[in-house]
Amino acid sequence: MVRRTGRRPGNPDTRDAILATARTAFAEKGYDGASIRHIATGAGVDPALVHHYFGTKDKLFLAAMNAPLDPGELIPEVLAGDQDAIGERLVRFFLSIWDSPAGKAGVAMLRSAVSSEWTAKLFREFVVSQVLRRVRQLVPMPPAEAPMRVSLVASQLAGLAMARYVIKIEPLASASPDVLVAAIGPTIQRYVFGDLSGIWPSPPPPDAAG
Amino acid sequence: MVRRTGRRPGNPDTRDAILATARTAFAEKGYDGASIRHIATGAGVDPALVHHYFGTKDKLFLAAMNAPLDPGELIPEVLAGDQDAIGERLVRFFLSIWDSPAGKAGVAMLRSAVSSEWTAKLFREFVVSQVLRRVRQLVPMPPAEAPMRVSLVASQLAGLAMARYVIKIEPLASASPDVLVAAIGPTIQRYVFGDLSGIWPSPPPPDAAG
Repeated sequence: MVRRTGRRPGNPDTRDAILATARTAFAEKGYDGASIRHIATGAGVDPALVHHYFGTKDKLFLAAMNAPLDPGELIPEVLAGDQDAIGERLVRFFLSIWDSPAGKAGVAMLRSAVSSEWTAKLFREFVVSQVLRRVRQLVPMPPAEAPMRVSLVASQLAGLAMARYVIKIEPLASASPDVLVAAIGPTIQRYVFGDLSGIWPSPPPPDAAG
Repeated sequence: MVRRTGRRPGNPDTRDAILATARTAFAEKGYDGASIRHIATGAGVDPALVHHYFGTKDKLFLAAMNAPLDPGELIPEVLAGDQDAIGERLVRFFLSIWDSPAGKAGVAMLRSAVSSEWTAKLFREFVVSQVLRRVRQLVPMPPAEAPMRVSLVASQLAGLAMARYVIKIEPLASASPDVLVAAIGPTIQRYVFGDLSGIWPSPPPPDAAG
């Protein structure tokens, strides 16, 4: 969970102004392009106050998104361990989050993400900077292949969230986690480590020059 | 495409009243539970007028959803032919629709579907009655397995639409159809016809009684 710092602001207007400015900055400039200094200027406060209220830029972004969890704390745990079962572990973890009380906030985030181009861009920055980038750093994939592989993973997991929690298509919506882990785990495993023939340009065979 | 009948109403208010009543009925009672007679009564018109304006219940539903295409016309074409390539054909067809001008209407439908519980229920009725039911009727799957298999297909395709057209996660959002067919086609093929060990309760081995 995102830990509350215990240093909640004396002035909620200031805090809200920072969050509103941060949302605009992250959506317009992207996560990397938005700086705490710029956000502070936009909100008319000192950068030190932003750090005081929110800590790091990651934490500010999570607060701006009303994210119920911190992917930076959870993802390393899920990705550690047996790489042959990473697909199953990812699906089981994903379901455990969405089936928990945090799932309601997840549906709210997804609803908000889809509601306009602007909110979709903000959500994309969240997914890319807070989730996919960490997965790429922690899972040993060829760097040239990693971006496509993780975006394929994102497509299946986004669709699982849509089908199970938003549109609620049966029997998937009521299926046990075990059933879905068995069905979808291998899909994720293949997207991360499997043979994706036809996607990558093949290297020339060893005797190509001969 | 949904063919316009050429019999557009003289009174747009009546037509809109029928559509509004139809949306409520389909969302509240489901596609099967909502009848043209009931919808006509709710809109204060004769059932014959509903048939006159919209034709069948399917066509009324498509009009109520602002569906840019008629799955009843398209799905049989896609599913005919070589069953070993059904996954690739489904992905290629899905991309051809979303990459076409109809894709904008698809994004609008998806946005609307996600915006509330009510619209999600309406969209689910659309997906189930207009798409998944037809797929189940046309593809030879064991009846006990078909509902889960088609809802898994729906999860991957919904996620593909979300990742590529709504959230726009790169490089998936800009990838060529060929790349995505090669990456995602085998996932769909496995969901439709593949080994989903661990999902179905295994039959007892032949010597279980001994």
